[in-house]
Amino acid sequence: MRELILKFGQRLSSVFIEPGLLRAAGRWIRKYADARNVAVISDTTVSGLYADDLLASLRGAGLTADLYTVPDGEDSKTLDRVSGLITLLLESGLHRDDLILALGGGVVGDLAGFVAATFLRGVRWVGIPTTLLAQVDSGIGGKVGVNHPLGKNLIGNFHQPEFVLIDSRVLGTLPEREMWAGMGEVVKYGLIWDKRFFDDLENQLENLVALNHEDRVDEVVFTCCKIKAEIVEQDEKEKDLRRILNFGHTLGHALEAATDFQVFRHGEAVVHGMRFAAWASTQKNRLPAVDLERIESLLARFPIPGILEALSADRIVTCSAFDKKRLRHGQTLVLLEEIGEARMERTESIKKMIEEWLGHAGR
Amino acid sequence: MRELILKFGQRLSSVFIEPGLLRAAGRWIRKYADARNVAVISDTTVSGLYADDLLASLRGAGLTADLYTVPDGEDSKTLDRVSGLITLLLESGLHRDDLILALGGGVVGDLAGFVAATFLRGVRWVGIPTTLLAQVDSGIGGKVGVNHPLGKNLIGNFHQPEFVLIDSRVLGTLPEREMWAGMGEVVKYGLIWDKRFFDDLENQLENLVALNHEDRVDEVVFTCCKIKAEIVEQDEKEKDLRRILNFGHTLGHALEAATDFQVFRHGEAVVHGMRFAAWASTQKNRLPAVDLERIESLLARFPIPGILEALSADRIVTCSAFDKKRLRHGQTLVLLEEIGEARMERTESIKKMIEEWLGHAGR
Repeated sequence: MRELILKFGQRLSSVFIEPGLLRAAGRWIRKYADARNVAVISDTTVSGLYADDLLASLRGAGLTADLYTVPDGEDSKTLDRVSGLITLLLESGLHRDDLILALGGGVVGDLAGFVAATFLRGVRWVGIPTTLLAQVDSGIGGKVGVNHPLGKNLIGNFHQPEFVLIDSRVLGTLPEREMWAGMGEVVKYGLIWDKRFFDDLENQLENLVALNHEDRVDEVVFTCCKIKAEIVEQDEKEKDLRRILNFGHTLGHALEAATDFQVFRHGEAVVHGMRFAAWASTQKNRLPAVDLERIESLLARFPIPGILEALSADRIVTCSAFDKKRLRHGQTLVLLEEIGEARMERTESIKKMIEEWLGHAGR
Repeated sequence: MRELILKFGQRLSSVFIEPGLLRAAGRWIRKYADARNVAVISDTTVSGLYADDLLASLRGAGLTADLYTVPDGEDSKTLDRVSGLITLLLESGLHRDDLILALGGGVVGDLAGFVAATFLRGVRWVGIPTTLLAQVDSGIGGKVGVNHPLGKNLIGNFHQPEFVLIDSRVLGTLPEREMWAGMGEVVKYGLIWDKRFFDDLENQLENLVALNHEDRVDEVVFTCCKIKAEIVEQDEKEKDLRRILNFGHTLGHALEAATDFQVFRHGEAVVHGMRFAAWASTQKNRLPAVDLERIESLLARFPIPGILEALSADRIVTCSAFDKKRLRHGQTLVLLEEIGEARMERTESIKKMIEEWLGHAGR
């Protein structure tokens, strides 16, 4: 069992990592959350795979448990869905001392966490992330929320889960494409925080994606969670340090938006974003060329969609956080000093840089 | 100038009380909030009366300020309205370093505060409460939220304002009925916390409602805020002590709900609720009969609608927090030991008590 405790002022939030943990969820909740009624929120696919096991575990531990399923995918992250779920929770008589359990990937975690944050002004919640991306990134740190017609994650809160149960065995049913997408965020942690972790990933990337060694996967997930914990503990509300977690995300988000979220998985777009940010870091005389080469080689091993010729720098910038409307307070880009060390830098000529990158190395 | 500082862990939230403060809002925000752009959220009535003055003050201090108006009344406290306001704020380019200002009564404060709590996962906000009820109660303590078709305030957060500006001069345009309703909550503070304050209110109730002495009104508002601050600082998330603020609210809420929110203003229903809770306190051999008599005399001076014969204990209990569905974890009623001292007590036979009270003293 690997365990992490995150401290936010006086509040604690734990992460437990062990193969098979999903089927022990009931005992963990009895032991650590002192709850009697649990509302499980999941999506169609994940609940089809794992809800029976989870509910059996909860009920076996003497808990009352109900399942609420939302359709798969980003379209479920809406205020309407929040309202609908709250209706069901109220009708079920869920009480402020009860517990919400999010079983699923990033969408379910964000949605169920936001329901927990706002239902009766906040109830406790537990996460069981079922994608690699959610296990190493979105499921840790307490960012919860839904989308708005004008953009993603524009409505939300910071609401830390009581704890997160990570069971790498559930990754066995995850499509390989999703594994690679999650691995993009895994590599990010090496790049911004831990050179030895990056070295390690160079050696076993494909083995990890293939889930060849259960314990190595757990170790990698643990390292990611530990790095994220170190960062978000220091800056829960994303005022400063936490922004380095956005390495690769500026261009990444823009690529997603510019292609109407139809071409890239989030982690795939972030891989392109990291390619750009690493290149930009060298251009700005920060990152040594030899480091850039290693990064480019590693990221080239990701089997992800390329950036189409048709996608102009113009269109990308329009869709990015660098768009004029949001530029009022200036913008910063996360750059690398070397592998394992990131810093933020104010950027003026982002469009020119993207143009140049697309012309030379980008496609 | 009267000033209170509320401490919640490391966060501070201040209350400033002074006649004329509304027109000085711009300076205060420049001085204490370090913001450049302010989104003012108000309702039709209040914005018609005070928005011009407020916007002039903000702009005079070099701030950018935009006004967003919602229809008067409880019907504006919906998730749809939150979404609509967030659309407008996004379109205006409001940034996470900017400020939301709530100008209005409880509805506006709850709604604008919840928008602030959820917009971009939380931005800072300032309250300028314009009703007595909001100045002494709902505007202090950080409870924000909206209604759900199944009940009031079922969706929300705790999100403390940066500060609250209380200007008793704005009460000059408040209908007398609203003054009385707010005064119900004022008396509550005396009953649960401060006997001398209660004595004081016995002597000047009508003078206060008539706003005869600006400084005395300020002093009374200050006392209420101070009591509420003491309580919520110790229990921000309403786990325990904060519940004594619900004195009179159990029956009060039930009366409001049982009459479809058409008969009583909230503060009026609370006056009836306090009459019941005081009577119940004596029945339970807590509150001395002489204290009960004083309470009954004071509350009888409130010109409020009576409880109709048609309203049965059955109907009231069905609409109350004592309804079966919510009873799972037991229910507590706030009772008085004496004037100025409250305690919570588990209650079993609430329906019988309400029946008895309605039969004897209640109507």
